[in-house]
Amino acid sequence: MTCRRIVLAARPTGPVGEQHFRLETLQLPALTDGQVLVRNRWLSLDPYMRGRMNEGRSYAASQPLDETMIGGTAGEVIESRSPKFAAGDQVVGMFGWQDHGISDGRGLMKVDTARIPLSAYLGAVGMPGVTAWVGLNRIIEPKAGETVVVSAASGAVGSVVGQLAKLSQCRAIGIAGGAEKCAYVVDELGFDACIDYKSADLGKELKRLAPDGVDGHFENVGGAILDALLPRMNAFGRIAVCGMIAGYDGDPIPIRNPAWILLSRLKIQGFIVSEHMQLWPQALAELGAQVAAGRMKYRESIALGLENAPAAFIGLLKGRNFGKQLVKLD
Amino acid sequence: MTCRRIVLAARPTGPVGEQHFRLETLQLPALTDGQVLVRNRWLSLDPYMRGRMNEGRSYAASQPLDETMIGGTAGEVIESRSPKFAAGDQVVGMFGWQDHGISDGRGLMKVDTARIPLSAYLGAVGMPGVTAWVGLNRIIEPKAGETVVVSAASGAVGSVVGQLAKLSQCRAIGIAGGAEKCAYVVDELGFDACIDYKSADLGKELKRLAPDGVDGHFENVGGAILDALLPRMNAFGRIAVCGMIAGYDGDPIPIRNPAWILLSRLKIQGFIVSEHMQLWPQALAELGAQVAAGRMKYRESIALGLENAPAAFIGLLKGRNFGKQLVKLD
Repeated sequence: MTCRRIVLAARPTGPVGEQHFRLETLQLPALTDGQVLVRNRWLSLDPYMRGRMNEGRSYAASQPLDETMIGGTAGEVIESRSPKFAAGDQVVGMFGWQDHGISDGRGLMKVDTARIPLSAYLGAVGMPGVTAWVGLNRIIEPKAGETVVVSAASGAVGSVVGQLAKLSQCRAIGIAGGAEKCAYVVDELGFDACIDYKSADLGKELKRLAPDGVDGHFENVGGAILDALLPRMNAFGRIAVCGMIAGYDGDPIPIRNPAWILLSRLKIQGFIVSEHMQLWPQALAELGAQVAAGRMKYRESIALGLENAPAAFIGLLKGRNFGKQLVKLD
Repeated sequence: MTCRRIVLAARPTGPVGEQHFRLETLQLPALTDGQVLVRNRWLSLDPYMRGRMNEGRSYAASQPLDETMIGGTAGEVIESRSPKFAAGDQVVGMFGWQDHGISDGRGLMKVDTARIPLSAYLGAVGMPGVTAWVGLNRIIEPKAGETVVVSAASGAVGSVVGQLAKLSQCRAIGIAGGAEKCAYVVDELGFDACIDYKSADLGKELKRLAPDGVDGHFENVGGAILDALLPRMNAFGRIAVCGMIAGYDGDPIPIRNPAWILLSRLKIQGFIVSEHMQLWPQALAELGAQVAAGRMKYRESIALGLENAPAAFIGLLKGRNFGKQLVKLD
């Protein structure tokens, strides 16, 4: 049996291109005792993968060259020599950009697809959903009546942040790129408002839509968006930093007026969801219940076929996706 | 009986000068029931006063024009029509830049000068000491063995931060301006090291003196110092923001590379000590015990005479003081 996979062929120095990836076909070895073979049905594409493609100091190890690209996957056990799994089990794992995976069971989680679609375990009921849950509930800690802003609001993380904020009786304001995404954020996800950063004066719109100021901000982007938020934050405001872009040429984008941190006694805190594993069970249980009950909505951008993963990933980095970016591996 | 006071005569648009202050002499009214008359012996000069001299949005009300400059004072009750105070009581209060004060007792605190000098209640056992205590213990939360850095290390706040860090079994590194201040910070206050930001390459020195990184930073200055600290912070580092300077012409000084907030999962939090009144009793009790036992040292810069308060304040803003800046009102 063969396995198709995509490896990192070269490290990008500028924008990521197809030339940085390579599709390979390998022979799969026979299973040994305790192992399971999984046929991946869905591959998750996420912005964090861009950071892994670089060398150098970061919070996580670099993606090795010529190895399978890292990534979350959802699929089905097709052969098992483990007592813990049976053929037909639906599982999520971290097999990366490949259509099969062999595991001794570590890092593999059985999921129930009776009321929640398998792909949702890579989105609202998976890592992006838990990211939203942790940043909102453990850093922003929203109280009823407060105003919460989230950037990249139509994305896999941002869409959950705003819906959780609404479920916590907060006012939720999104920031997204383009009228279509903004309409979706308000009309489908139920945010109170959404600002199109591509066409609006962000500072003015924040002032108009949050005349009493902003209490919590979930930052997925950084740069000009964070700069526009700081003066609008209320005293004792909390900013959860989940994503920070760099400038076009990779140079850092400064925070222009950090004095607001003191003037408004702000808390700004960066976090990475994989360092809060103890919160995952509670977060996944709550998110799963909301999705199963239809109170938490999500949207997916689906690329078809492993060979199209690089193009879909490049599009994700450019904001071309609309909701959670997935690759369907059929 | 007369009272001499200094009022704000004009708001500075650039550097503060003597022309922004005016010395006045007023008649004191007779006391009414419940009131006390205090002869102030010490006036505290603090950087926060500079912010009050501006108009516009800040965390505190502006200092009104033609009114007594705000400020902490320590002195002696010389006449009392209150059952709570007697002539001879030593008290600290907020009478501002004047040699007498009349109060109904609110905001006036009797202090014991048997083992702690009266002036210390404006420094290590007063607002600056509590500022150090709150930022260190409630935001940085140092653990034994960690490395804590503090800027303006020889000052009223910074000197307490480092000594408290040492008492918490941490490594303490100061940043101060000039060899004399640095020698004092190490030799007298017992910090492990002190960097002279005027002569050293701050980033290199931090790397040399904290080869395992920095866990907590107490920021009294901002600007280039904060920029140099960010890349040296360890994962999950905490930065308490107590002071933030602006550039020479009043323009903000940016944080050049905020990506470190995410890369190192930092917490950066601004705070103002007057918003943590519930912590003052515990902080003052602990600080008082350390000072009385000789385990907490401090240094004072003393200007003589109310008329010299403006010049002393201007010197404070330029870093000419060495330790807590006071005015002796004899």
